[in-house]
Amino acid sequence: MTAPQPGQHMAKEIAEQPAVFADLYNRRAEFAAIAQTIRERSPRFVLFAARGSSDHAAIYAKYLTEVLLQLPAGLVSASTTTLYGAEPDLRDVLLVTVSQSGGSPDLLEVTASARRRGALTVAVTNTATSPINAAAELSVDVGAGVEHAVAATKTYSATLLALYLLVDAARGGDGSAAASLGELASAALEAPGISEVVGRYRFVDRVLTTGRGFSYPTALEASLKLAETSYLAARAYSGADLLHGPVAAVDAETAVLAVTSSGKGGDALRDVLEAVHQRGADVTAVGSAADKVAAAHRILVPETAEEVAPILEILPIQRLAHGLALARGGDPDNPRGLNKVTRTL
Amino acid sequence: MTAPQPGQHMAKEIAEQPAVFADLYNRRAEFAAIAQTIRERSPRFVLFAARGSSDHAAIYAKYLTEVLLQLPAGLVSASTTTLYGAEPDLRDVLLVTVSQSGGSPDLLEVTASARRRGALTVAVTNTATSPINAAAELSVDVGAGVEHAVAATKTYSATLLALYLLVDAARGGDGSAAASLGELASAALEAPGISEVVGRYRFVDRVLTTGRGFSYPTALEASLKLAETSYLAARAYSGADLLHGPVAAVDAETAVLAVTSSGKGGDALRDVLEAVHQRGADVTAVGSAADKVAAAHRILVPETAEEVAPILEILPIQRLAHGLALARGGDPDNPRGLNKVTRTL
Repeated sequence: MTAPQPGQHMAKEIAEQPAVFADLYNRRAEFAAIAQTIRERSPRFVLFAARGSSDHAAIYAKYLTEVLLQLPAGLVSASTTTLYGAEPDLRDVLLVTVSQSGGSPDLLEVTASARRRGALTVAVTNTATSPINAAAELSVDVGAGVEHAVAATKTYSATLLALYLLVDAARGGDGSAAASLGELASAALEAPGISEVVGRYRFVDRVLTTGRGFSYPTALEASLKLAETSYLAARAYSGADLLHGPVAAVDAETAVLAVTSSGKGGDALRDVLEAVHQRGADVTAVGSAADKVAAAHRILVPETAEEVAPILEILPIQRLAHGLALARGGDPDNPRGLNKVTRTL
Repeated sequence: MTAPQPGQHMAKEIAEQPAVFADLYNRRAEFAAIAQTIRERSPRFVLFAARGSSDHAAIYAKYLTEVLLQLPAGLVSASTTTLYGAEPDLRDVLLVTVSQSGGSPDLLEVTASARRRGALTVAVTNTATSPINAAAELSVDVGAGVEHAVAATKTYSATLLALYLLVDAARGGDGSAAASLGELASAALEAPGISEVVGRYRFVDRVLTTGRGFSYPTALEASLKLAETSYLAARAYSGADLLHGPVAAVDAETAVLAVTSSGKGGDALRDVLEAVHQRGADVTAVGSAADKVAAAHRILVPETAEEVAPILEILPIQRLAHGLALARGGDPDNPRGLNKVTRTL
């Protein structure tokens, strides 16, 4: 038996994503059934409960909900339930709990409590037999298969796709914008330029990630991925917030990872990157609009409808995080001090 | 005429806060009138729209709304309106727009659009004649007076207090938890230990701020304040999220600024700080429970009801940001590259 190589699980799980996307798309009829119940209950307001990477997936789903479903949406602050015992009236509310493991005690409490208070509850997890699935009225199985690396990769992207298919089905769509994501994912994983950025970031101290609109959750996830695998002091800002204050901290010592895809979010990021570029920062642009902004380095990802672009944008960034962790002597499968399921109360 | 001294405006505005709090508390009858309209319209959901420091005030108000008003609440993603043209049905929704200047074009658009779609709209600004006040049905005047320094200090804390008085009035309260904040603010500003932390952070590169529950917005604001005045790569995490991944990036090179006040949020942070401490991080605890956690340094703030603690917690942190910017050779009144009102679309 050979010893495990550092990062072997993460590499394998990253490479599985094209097949995971294709499988999930082929299961889209399952989403139609759940969406039918949502439509019948016609919620007025949608809440998402999540932590960590799943929180970034929830932010993506919040954008989808507002833009595609035309419903107001918010993220649950779990602590108002778990610490302060808040019991708001949740009739006419759809609560979607997003958790890979389905095992976080705080999200379980939020889900059970919301159901008691009248919400229609849906669990979106990668563990169909989890306590959160049992607590929720409806369940969506992300179906990405077991993930061994501590850093979430395939479960993150597959959760985004599951949420897209769910929201699109809830508006009567057939998920067609996601039809080719399996094939396109292979191209995104092989996007030229990833290894050059690994080299470029070998000695970086300070990374800031940014994106606007649908690409903002990708910036958040990129920042977390770099922090947890390469121990970087990475921080994400929406392009709009960046100009409000944090841009003062941007200088020639700052690496900016900008997520920009074709569409309105990418268009709106252009001026932000112009300002960042003028401050001397080293900008790497990732996405299908990476060739349309001021940047020193570009990782071009295949073009899709803007609302599904986050599912592809994150793929080369996962490879960057994996490569960088190895280059800096770490093991991205087992970052120091982390466990797969965190139990916060 | 003498040349302006670096940071003189910020120092003056920080020092004004005890008087600003006392004035605002004395104006609490104004809030009762607005709260009466809110009660009559009995909203089912509350949305907050804000950017920058005001976004942190909005997160505080979201906790207040969930815990004190027992209503579900969320933060608006302005870009879904301004970039993607989302037009959700907002009947039965209360939209509170929080903006010091009242002039951000994107928040103006969000406010006007929400009012057209049926929301009860309330502007909370420090500029009673602003376009956002004109667009909203109701207005709350923060009344902190003109702020000259680019970094928001008195407008931030006064906005918190205004939001507290508004939410408390909406549940029929008389704001009594805020009655002594003026006096207590003087003590918080003179809390021993601030200058020691300025010295301690003189050469720091990496700062992470954290808090749980009501103290989480303070951690966010602390991080922004340090980034915009001292150009630090500061990042905020809720205590719960910190253990999900970012704790991997915490080591002996990391300064952790932990916000912890007496109450359930402070109690829940204790284990988090124990984990951070075990990783060798340099922890500075700020708040009324600063003496109850694992920390190398403590800045003790007077105790209050937990729901108003954020109004005091931020005060010594503002003095820290001011002192540190000067110690590092900057001018906190005019951080490089920042303007007072940012115009994002």
